[in-house]
Amino acid sequence: MGMGRFISFEGTEGVGKTTAIEGLCHRLTSQGIQVVRTREPGGSELAERVRELFLNPDNHIDANTEILLMFAARADHLHQTILPALKLGHWVVCDRFFDSTVAYQGFGRYKGDRSALAKIESLIEQFVPVVPDVTLWLDLDIATGMQRAGKRAAADRLEANDLAFFERVYQGLAYQQQKYPERIYRIDASGSADEVATRIDAALGL
Amino acid sequence: MGMGRFISFEGTEGVGKTTAIEGLCHRLTSQGIQVVRTREPGGSELAERVRELFLNPDNHIDANTEILLMFAARADHLHQTILPALKLGHWVVCDRFFDSTVAYQGFGRYKGDRSALAKIESLIEQFVPVVPDVTLWLDLDIATGMQRAGKRAAADRLEANDLAFFERVYQGLAYQQQKYPERIYRIDASGSADEVATRIDAALGL
Repeated sequence: MGMGRFISFEGTEGVGKTTAIEGLCHRLTSQGIQVVRTREPGGSELAERVRELFLNPDNHIDANTEILLMFAARADHLHQTILPALKLGHWVVCDRFFDSTVAYQGFGRYKGDRSALAKIESLIEQFVPVVPDVTLWLDLDIATGMQRAGKRAAADRLEANDLAFFERVYQGLAYQQQKYPERIYRIDASGSADEVATRIDAALGL
Repeated sequence: MGMGRFISFEGTEGVGKTTAIEGLCHRLTSQGIQVVRTREPGGSELAERVRELFLNPDNHIDANTEILLMFAARADHLHQTILPALKLGHWVVCDRFFDSTVAYQGFGRYKGDRSALAKIESLIEQFVPVVPDVTLWLDLDIATGMQRAGKRAAADRLEANDLAFFERVYQGLAYQQQKYPERIYRIDASGSADEVATRIDAALGL
């Protein structure tokens, strides 16, 4: 039994994360690798309940509450899902992990409020015992992504935002990638799903 | 309109917090003071929902998740309830606040794990913008408190613990009182409700 690898996917709306993750999990499974596919916020029963609180637009939650709920959900997700899977030697493929919190909460929602970013970085340090082995940032310009995403129903709170918000999120992902270039691979997400899949496999050495 | 005061009550099980809080709120209201009576975990709609997650024994939550849920609930409670009331000049009387997190999660549940306490202290510093003006620690020996509490149905998770647990919680409250002697008043909780009320009013200068 091989060592499990922990892979996370990041990207702004409409970059094709879902398709890319489905494809990767399918290819890994075909190779006989046991894969746990999961997502954030969510990925465990309690974290999915917290996700509902978080995405409900009736809950007018402030910056501190939002950040702490994200990390509470993540702590349970790690405890119930990610760490046990890695311990068994499975691969974990996760749709968003803490880089999304930096991007969405640290940069997107709280522009200019550097204290939110500092709090998030402190919470990562104290409450996240495992960092992904590889993070695949599906990089696509915001306008193209928004066009793609427009095809889907986008009613929940995370998507009810404007272009400037997504530009800040994009800057947040770029900030993380510059900070952790050895972990975060920038994947060109333009072109067909097959082309993107080929780039992902190359990055993972598959 | 006077300045609002923020009063929290602390104490182990069966010390008579509920009776003492009801009595104090009644006396304050009789003096024409506007009082918001609240509690933790809880005190706002979202925080009460988080409380349910937290107290449900089916959710086998780990130390990190528990601590982060407590602070997420507290952040919402502060944002929705405590800070607006203080801004209006009302008094806030709160059944438990962060000293309980130090005592129950820092000392009670995670005996010997000093990292839990360090995390809690870091979260207080970063995510709690207002400290109570006065904290009333109702101090009663554990055995007497347990006897009193035994009269009530004690089915939820916080109360399904043993004597050693409550001894550690008590040590946690004593630790906080030694650290913040100017804020935390130790109130002798033995004797009748009237006797305790007299001691509380004296501590508050009422």
